[in-house]
Amino acid sequence: MTADAPLDEIAAPCSPRSGARLALQPISIGRARVTGGYWARWQRDNRAVTTPHATHWLEKDGVLDNFRRLVDSSVIAERRGWVFCDSDLYKVLEGIGWDLSRGASAELSAFVADAVALLDRVQEDDGYLNTFVQAGLEQRYANLTRGHELYCAGHLIQAGIALARTTADESLLAIGRRFADHLVAEFGNGRRGDTDGHPEIETALVELYRHTGERAYLDLAKQLIDVRGHGVIGQGLFGPAYFQDIAPVRDQDTVIGHAVRALYLLAGVVDVYLETGEEALLHAAQRQWRSMVAEKTYLTGAVGSRFEGEAFGDRFELPPDLIYGETCASIAGVMLSWRLLLATGDGAYADLIERILYNAFSGATSVSRDRFFYVNPLHRRSPRPPAPTGGKPLRTDAPGTRAEWFDVACCPPNIMRTIASLSGYLATSDDRGIQLHLYTPSSVNTELAAGEVAVSVATEYPEDGVIAVTVERSITQPWTLSLRIPSWCRRPALTVAGEPVPVERGARGYVVVERVWAPGDVVVLDLPMPARVTAPHPAVDAVRGQVAIERGPVVFCLESVGGELDLDAVELLIEANLRVERDEELFDGTTVVRVAGRLRDDSAWEGAGWSEISAVPASNRRPRELTAIPYRLWANRGPSTMRVWAPAVHAPSIP
Amino acid sequence: MTADAPLDEIAAPCSPRSGARLALQPISIGRARVTGGYWARWQRDNRAVTTPHATHWLEKDGVLDNFRRLVDSSVIAERRGWVFCDSDLYKVLEGIGWDLSRGASAELSAFVADAVALLDRVQEDDGYLNTFVQAGLEQRYANLTRGHELYCAGHLIQAGIALARTTADESLLAIGRRFADHLVAEFGNGRRGDTDGHPEIETALVELYRHTGERAYLDLAKQLIDVRGHGVIGQGLFGPAYFQDIAPVRDQDTVIGHAVRALYLLAGVVDVYLETGEEALLHAAQRQWRSMVAEKTYLTGAVGSRFEGEAFGDRFELPPDLIYGETCASIAGVMLSWRLLLATGDGAYADLIERILYNAFSGATSVSRDRFFYVNPLHRRSPRPPAPTGGKPLRTDAPGTRAEWFDVACCPPNIMRTIASLSGYLATSDDRGIQLHLYTPSSVNTELAAGEVAVSVATEYPEDGVIAVTVERSITQPWTLSLRIPSWCRRPALTVAGEPVPVERGARGYVVVERVWAPGDVVVLDLPMPARVTAPHPAVDAVRGQVAIERGPVVFCLESVGGELDLDAVELLIEANLRVERDEELFDGTTVVRVAGRLRDDSAWEGAGWSEISAVPASNRRPRELTAIPYRLWANRGPSTMRVWAPAVHAPSIP
Repeated sequence: MTADAPLDEIAAPCSPRSGARLALQPISIGRARVTGGYWARWQRDNRAVTTPHATHWLEKDGVLDNFRRLVDSSVIAERRGWVFCDSDLYKVLEGIGWDLSRGASAELSAFVADAVALLDRVQEDDGYLNTFVQAGLEQRYANLTRGHELYCAGHLIQAGIALARTTADESLLAIGRRFADHLVAEFGNGRRGDTDGHPEIETALVELYRHTGERAYLDLAKQLIDVRGHGVIGQGLFGPAYFQDIAPVRDQDTVIGHAVRALYLLAGVVDVYLETGEEALLHAAQRQWRSMVAEKTYLTGAVGSRFEGEAFGDRFELPPDLIYGETCASIAGVMLSWRLLLATGDGAYADLIERILYNAFSGATSVSRDRFFYVNPLHRRSPRPPAPTGGKPLRTDAPGTRAEWFDVACCPPNIMRTIASLSGYLATSDDRGIQLHLYTPSSVNTELAAGEVAVSVATEYPEDGVIAVTVERSITQPWTLSLRIPSWCRRPALTVAGEPVPVERGARGYVVVERVWAPGDVVVLDLPMPARVTAPHPAVDAVRGQVAIERGPVVFCLESVGGELDLDAVELLIEANLRVERDEELFDGTTVVRVAGRLRDDSAWEGAGWSEISAVPASNRRPRELTAIPYRLWANRGPSTMRVWAPAVHAPSIP
Repeated sequence: MTADAPLDEIAAPCSPRSGARLALQPISIGRARVTGGYWARWQRDNRAVTTPHATHWLEKDGVLDNFRRLVDSSVIAERRGWVFCDSDLYKVLEGIGWDLSRGASAELSAFVADAVALLDRVQEDDGYLNTFVQAGLEQRYANLTRGHELYCAGHLIQAGIALARTTADESLLAIGRRFADHLVAEFGNGRRGDTDGHPEIETALVELYRHTGERAYLDLAKQLIDVRGHGVIGQGLFGPAYFQDIAPVRDQDTVIGHAVRALYLLAGVVDVYLETGEEALLHAAQRQWRSMVAEKTYLTGAVGSRFEGEAFGDRFELPPDLIYGETCASIAGVMLSWRLLLATGDGAYADLIERILYNAFSGATSVSRDRFFYVNPLHRRSPRPPAPTGGKPLRTDAPGTRAEWFDVACCPPNIMRTIASLSGYLATSDDRGIQLHLYTPSSVNTELAAGEVAVSVATEYPEDGVIAVTVERSITQPWTLSLRIPSWCRRPALTVAGEPVPVERGARGYVVVERVWAPGDVVVLDLPMPARVTAPHPAVDAVRGQVAIERGPVVFCLESVGGELDLDAVELLIEANLRVERDEELFDGTTVVRVAGRLRDDSAWEGAGWSEISAVPASNRRPRELTAIPYRLWANRGPSTMRVWAPAVHAPSIP
C-alpha cells in the first residue's frame, strides 16, 4: 500500500465534529496507513494470529453462548463468565472493524455477520442488551456499582462505530444506537442521578454523537461525567475513590483509584470538552495527566501501582516488582493522551504515547502475538511457573510467561482494537500542513484548503533513528511538515532535499519546516539513538540508586532465563560505555545493549536482612558484562527473572 | 505481685510433654510474671479496655448471635460475618483465659460461663460445631479450601486449654475435645487425605495432646502436616502455594504463600517435632525461619510483603509502603520463634520475638488499646482518611488511623491472647538454671533438681538498657543465670554483686553466669542504648540508599501529622550525631531521637518522573533537624505520613 493507493475516507476512532477546539485534526484511517515495519507486521499478525485466537476463546469461554442461549433453546449452557464479559465480544468486533480497513476478509465478515445477527435477536425491544441481566441474574441497573451495564454498552457502541466507518455496514451500529437511545430514555435529562461504576460509556457516547450528530448522546455523556464524584455509585469493595466517585472530576488534581477507570473517564472528559468547549474539563484532564506522568507513571509508560484495587498509588509509589500496570491502563493512557494531543498540539502527549506503545503495550503481547500479560512488571525477582497451556489464569496470577487468555479477558481484545486502529495515531493535520507523531513506514495524506498533500515515510525506527519523509503529492502554495522531536533526543539533525537545516524544536516539541514542496522532495530527520542511562526522580524510593537503559523510545531490561545470572546481585557501571549491537540470533534479530557491570557477592551477610551501618559486611564484586534486551521482548523464552532498573555504581578508577 | 506470692502451676501456652527434645523448658505462667512496666500496663489495659471493647464487637457483629440463633428460635437474625468468624469468639475466650491467670474477674468469668453454656448447646451430638455449616450455608468439610472448619476448631481447642490451665474449669475444653474426637473420627488414621486451607488445627491438636495425653490428637496433627503439600486442598483463589499445599513442608526451603498460614503451620510443625523427635520437621522449620529473617522480614519484624494473597513475596521483596504485614503474621512469628527457641536454645529466635513485640506487634494497637491496625506499613506516603467511628473497615482498606474493629476481625483477639499470655515468653529453665529472654519488670522462678530458685527483674527497658536481676530464692548448689545479649547490643556490661564481670556472649547469644547464688545477690546487665543507624541488605531494592534509626530493640520512624514536613523530601545525614532525648509531652512521655537532616527541593524536576542521567536537574537542599519517634506510636495523633527508612546522605564537609 502506498500513497498512490485509492483513498478511503474512514473516520479515525476519535473524530471530533468541530474543528474549533482542535489544535490538530485527526487524519482518517484511509489517509494514514502503516505500510511496513514493526507495526505493519503486528497488524498482519493481528489478523492472522490474534483474531482467530480470540474468536476461539470467545467460543471456549461461552461468551457467544451467553448470547445464543437467550434466543436458542437448544443452547442449554448456563451463562458463564464475569458480569462484563459481553464486552469481550464487542472489543473483538471493534478490532475486526478497524482491521477491515486494511482489506476485506470473507472469514472476518462472516464472523461479524453472525455476531450481529445474534445480537440483533438478543436485543430487547426497548434496546436493552446484556446477557447477565437477560439471564435473570440481576435486575436492570440495580447494581450500577459492579454491573458494568453501561460499560458493556459503550463497547458495543464503539464496535458499531468501527464497523460502520470501515465497512459502511451500519447493522451493528444500529444495535448500539438502539441501546444508546434506551440509555438516553432511562438516564438522560437527569432522569437518573447515578452512573456506571466503570467509565467507558462516556467516550463511546461522544463518538456516537460525532458519528450521528444526535446531540442527546453528547448530553448524556456530559451528564454522566457531571454526576460522578458525588458519591452516587456506592461503596463497592474499595470505596468511592476506586471508581472516581469521591470528588467531581473538575476538582481532581491527580489520577486516583482504578487506573483503567480513571483514564477511560478522562478520555471521555476530553471528548466532551472537544465538543462543548468547557475548558474546566480540559484543564482537569491536563492537570491529572501531568500529575500522572510526573509522579505515577513507570518508565515503560505503565500505570497503576497497586494490585489492591488495580489502582494508582500515592505519588512516587512506583514499585517495579509489585506493580499492577494493567495492559488496559496502558491502552487507556494512549487514548487519553491522543485526545489531549488533538486538543493542544503538545508533543509531550505524543511522547507518552510512543513510550507506552513500544514498552508497556508491546511487552504485554508475546512475539507470537497469541499470548498476553495482564500485569506488566518492571522487575521479576524469581521465575514463576509458565502460564497454563489451554488455560486462562486469574488476571492477578501473573504467571511467568504470557497467558493464552484470562479469567477476566479485557486486555487481549483491547490490544487487538488498538493494533487494528494504530494508524489513527500516526499523524494529524492542521490548516498549514501535516504533523508526524509516530515514525514508522507509512503514508499520510490530507486535504488542505488548496488541495491534497501527501507524504510517505521510510524508516527502520525504532531500530534506527533515520526517518526519510518523501513528499508524494503537493500543492503550489507553501505548507508545513511538522516532525516530532522526541524528548529523549539530544541532537536531532535535519536535511531538506539534501541540505542541512538547523533543527529548532518548538515549544510543542516539533520541528516545523514550511516551504513550497514538490513531489519527490525528501526530508531526512536523524534522531541519533545512542543507548543512554536514565535515572529516576529522587523521590521514587523503590528504585533509588538504580538506573535504566534506554535507546530511542525503547526501554531495555536485563533478563535471566536459565538462572545463569543472579539479577539480585547485578550492578551497572554507569560511567562505562554502552555498546549497541545487533543480535541476529535473538528473536529473529534485535538490538541489544552491552553494558559493563558487576556481580555482588553478599554471602558475608548473615542472619537478618539489616545491619548496623558501621558493621555492614563488605560485599565482594566481580566484573561481568551484561546484555540488555528491549523490555517488550522479555518472558518470550520461558519463565525468567528480569529487571528494568538496576543498582548503579560509578566505575572504579582501578578496574 | 512478687516472687513471694503463692505460686500457680499454670502450664504455659506451649508446654511440651517430653523434655528430651527441649533445649529450654517453658516456665509456667504462674512462675513467670510481668510485674510492672510497659507490658504490665498493657496487660492491665487488655483487661480493662480491650476485652470489653472486644465483647462489645462480638455482640455488634453478630458473632454471638450466630451461635444463639441455632438454639434459640427467638433470635431471628440471619447468620452474619465471614465463614471463620466463630474464631473471633474463641480467641477472645482464649485471651480471657490467659488473663484470668492474673486475678479473678466476676465479669469475665460470667462472660465465659455464658459463652460455654451457649457453645455446649450448639455443639452437635457428634462433637461438630460451626455456625456457618450449622446454619445450612455449607456441608461439613465440603469446602476445606475456604471453609476454615478445622481452623475454627483449633481456636476452640486453644481457648479450652487456656481456661482449663488458668481456672481449672474444663467445661470449654470438654467442648473442644469433643470436636477434636470428632475430627479424629473423621480424618484420623488417613480416613481423609485432605486438610484445611488455613493451618491452625495442628498446633492446637498438639497442645491438646500435651494437656490430655491422648496420642490420637498428636497423630492427627502429624497426619495433617504430612498430607499438606501434595495438592490436596485445591486451587482456591491464589493457587496451592497460597495455603502451603504446593510442596511438602519437609521439602520447603523458604516461607511461601499466605504469611499467617505459613507460620501457623510451621508452629505446628515444630510442635510435632518436639513430641515426635522427627528432625526433618525441625530442620524444615529452621531453614524456613532463616530464609524468612534473612530475606523476607521487615525491620519491624513484620512479614508478608503482598496484599495479593496476603503473602510472603520473593526474597528481598520488601516494599515498606505496599507491605501487607498482617498483625496476625507478626503474632504467628512470635509463636514459631518461641517454639524454635525451646527446641534449640538459640537466642536469635528471642531476638526476633523482641523485635516483633516492640515494633510490628506493638504498633498494631493504639496507645488507647482499643484501636488496631491489620496492615502494618513502614511507610505511609500520604495521609489517609481516619478509620470510621463505630465502623469496621475492610482489612485491606488500611485507613489513616487504627480501626475499632475489622470486617475480618482476626487480629484484635489475636493481640488480646498474646498480651494475656505474654509472661509465657519471658524466661525458660533448664537443668542448670534460668534463662531470661525478654527484659521487663518481672519475677521468675523454677524448680531445679536441688530445689526452687527465683529471681526478680527491675528495669526501665526498653527506655533504658540497665537490667537489675535480684536472686530471690536459691539453693546451696551453683546454678546458672543466663541473660540474653540482644544482637543489636555492642558493648554489654555486667556486674555480679557489684563486681564487674567480663561479658562473654556465647554462641547462642547469652551471657551465662554460674555460681552459688544467695538471695539478695544482684546481677546488673547494662545494655547501652545509643541510637544507631541501620542499613538494609544490599539486595533490598525498595529501601536501597536508605537507613533507619533504632535504639535498643525499638525501631524509630519519622512522622508528619499536620503536613508540616514533606517526608518525600527528607534525607538523613548519617554521619551526624543522633541525640536521644525524652519528650515528656509526647504520648505522656517517650524517648525520641533528634537527627540532622535535609529537605530536598525537587522543583527543578519537570515533566516526567525520570531523566537521562546526564541531565538530572540539581535539587536544592536545606538543613532540617528531624525528630524520630518509636515506630509503635505512629498514627496515634490522627492521619499522618510516616517512614521508617529514609534516604541517607553523608554529611557534607561544608554545612
